[in-house]
Amino acid sequence: PLSKLSNVGTTIFSQMTQLANENEAINLSQGFPDFMPDSELLNHVDYFIKKGFNQYAPLGGMIGLKEEIARKIGNSHKAVYHPESEITVTAGGTQAIFTAIASFIKKDDEVIIFEPAYDCYEPTVELFGGIVKRFEMKAPDYEINWAEVKNLVSEKTRMIILNNPNNPSGKILKENDLQELINLVKGTSILILSDEVYENIVFDGKQHLSICKYPELKERSLLVASFGKLFHVTGWKVGYCAAPKSLTEEFRKVHQFNVFCVNTPIQLALAEYMKNDEHYTYLNQFFQEKRDFLRKGLAGTSFELLDCEGTYFQALKYDKISDKNDFDFASELTINYKVASIPFSSFYKNKLNENVIRLCFAKKQETLEKALENLSKI
Amino acid sequence: PLSKLSNVGTTIFSQMTQLANENEAINLSQGFPDFMPDSELLNHVDYFIKKGFNQYAPLGGMIGLKEEIARKIGNSHKAVYHPESEITVTAGGTQAIFTAIASFIKKDDEVIIFEPAYDCYEPTVELFGGIVKRFEMKAPDYEINWAEVKNLVSEKTRMIILNNPNNPSGKILKENDLQELINLVKGTSILILSDEVYENIVFDGKQHLSICKYPELKERSLLVASFGKLFHVTGWKVGYCAAPKSLTEEFRKVHQFNVFCVNTPIQLALAEYMKNDEHYTYLNQFFQEKRDFLRKGLAGTSFELLDCEGTYFQALKYDKISDKNDFDFASELTINYKVASIPFSSFYKNKLNENVIRLCFAKKQETLEKALENLSKI
Ligand SMILES: CSCCC(=O)C(=O)O
Ligand SMILES: CSCCC(=O)C(=O)O
Repeated sequence: PLSKLSNVGTTIFSQMTQLANENEAINLSQGFPDFMPDSELLNHVDYFIKKGFNQYAPLGGMIGLKEEIARKIGNSHKAVYHPESEITVTAGGTQAIFTAIASFIKKDDEVIIFEPAYDCYEPTVELFGGIVKRFEMKAPDYEINWAEVKNLVSEKTRMIILNNPNNPSGKILKENDLQELINLVKGTSILILSDEVYENIVFDGKQHLSICKYPELKERSLLVASFGKLFHVTGWKVGYCAAPKSLTEEFRKVHQFNVFCVNTPIQLALAEYMKNDEHYTYLNQFFQEKRDFLRKGLAGTSFELLDCEGTYFQALKYDKISDKNDFDFASELTINYKVASIPFSSFYKNKLNENVIRLCFAKKQETLEKALENLSKI
Repeated sequence: PLSKLSNVGTTIFSQMTQLANENEAINLSQGFPDFMPDSELLNHVDYFIKKGFNQYAPLGGMIGLKEEIARKIGNSHKAVYHPESEITVTAGGTQAIFTAIASFIKKDDEVIIFEPAYDCYEPTVELFGGIVKRFEMKAPDYEINWAEVKNLVSEKTRMIILNNPNNPSGKILKENDLQELINLVKGTSILILSDEVYENIVFDGKQHLSICKYPELKERSLLVASFGKLFHVTGWKVGYCAAPKSLTEEFRKVHQFNVFCVNTPIQLALAEYMKNDEHYTYLNQFFQEKRDFLRKGLAGTSFELLDCEGTYFQALKYDKISDKNDFDFASELTINYKVASIPFSSFYKNKLNENVIRLCFAKKQETLEKALENLSKI
């Protein structure tokens, strides 16, 4: 049949995970933890299932979960969202992103994205006839030149997509970036889609600056987050979108026809578990220790460690080791050294190759040790 | 903000469930069981969660579940689907329908639907710029006049959406309907999206004729079904789409960016539970008893019972009781007689009112008894 996404293949995450499995390699490619989630959370699911909460949830989500989400955002960013009318529970962060784009992007609308970019933004925009304008952030600093971004804005610009903390670069936006963004959108009707699924994984005492901290941005923003990343359950597929009422209304029109609603007992379990803030405030420290262990182990190798301010990904420059492009290098690393990674070029439309790969360090100590052992042989 | 779905509100199912709750009415509106699912299935979820299967599933679904789905389709319809490349697990039947439309419908493509139609088809087609052509099936028989359907076909026809057994009318397609459909699509490139979520709820020894029984149809069809309806867990949100490889490839391109994948432990639990065919072969009989109980109880009232060949919905004509339109009648029934239903006009774009409402009988005996007690007061 005629393809609507003719230049789209299978996501790089699936490709590399498959290559890892085929080669019995340590899978530091696709981002997911290999340790157990908290058994308290697991017990909650069983409790609500056996209690008989197995039928449709309301389309916006279970009220208890929406309230806990609003409370968390309030605590973290002093921003107020109304649970009933401004928060929608989604089937993962990805579905929230897809639905946000589906709800607002029409043919010929322009959308600005920052590369390296998570791989679902661009094809989703194109599926709705939108046109993507790109700003390329580059190694080693991945800084945003806001004057150049400004040049991408036109009358047709409908949305700016942010990913903060950024996957794969690990960079976080600074106060200055957000001020520039405020200036950029002032007086326009540009919407912001802010993918903040790694909001609770930020290091060295730095602050995650959520879009919702800034009233001038919050009023035009769809804020997306994910329980998969928050509670080590990427396979449960629950996330949310927080947005002002008028945006949420449009979002839900599409949401109700896309998935209608999200798993009921899991929503109830998450709501119960979220009552204790300590279930996520430990994350910065927890992942910082993993990051530091990985960095220390790599310090003796020929890999160059780029900065990692947040997310559970470490970027590595390998030009002292090989002049292969990053896709080939990542493939060889998987096959010959049994460590799977993700090549950065996959996050650029133009496959920009700067000899950088990404390792996921959301792994148990033993896994990181084995990976370091293998990588030290290079 | 400018709305992409300006004439869409909240689905009738959410509206009527809310009205039911506000009025403490018996909720026979939205279609979901009020009895417990099998505890064996519930135990499986706990088992796989505690065993540690909580991270991303492959984007097409867990292989064990895809194999069981293929086996079920094979047993039921003697049709062969390849698990890896032709079956995709989705976040419910709704997400499968949305994704199928998203994958194939472009601006100005025409899509034929049969009304009364489940409410997500039309807005989803419109979201992608498609144009809906409708054939209205009407009370009391809801027959399809295929000569008229043929008149709806043009060079722009890209897809025909079927819902068999039909929600809300309870009608099933006959051998003759499928032969007419074969003639209609022969020599064209028209795709078929067949929503068969009630496939295992068919009464009086009648046969569900799946689209996949007919090679001339199967080759161009996306077949959608739902575990929510099959195992009484509408709140788990897992379903699937079975389609030939070339169609599945396009479907998955969108699926991976829409939800990426579906809840892992629940997929594993479903796979385990599906190994025993008796977990669903009893359904026809099980629901037939509920249907018959409801019909018998209503036989003494002024409601006119329309045929019910399948699904868990009973259609009632009420013109001996009231000349209100069906939306107002259903609202009053909820408020004054404490029984919530769904008005048929919600399933017609032009709000065709034939004084028919729908009652869901997927309820425990006690609930049906109470509803009958209330309805007998009319
Ligand atoms: C949905 S698979 C990708 C997971 C992820 O967030 C990543 O690896 O970047
Ligand atoms: C997704 S809510 C609607 C459930 C259903 O299938 C119906 O009531 O028709």
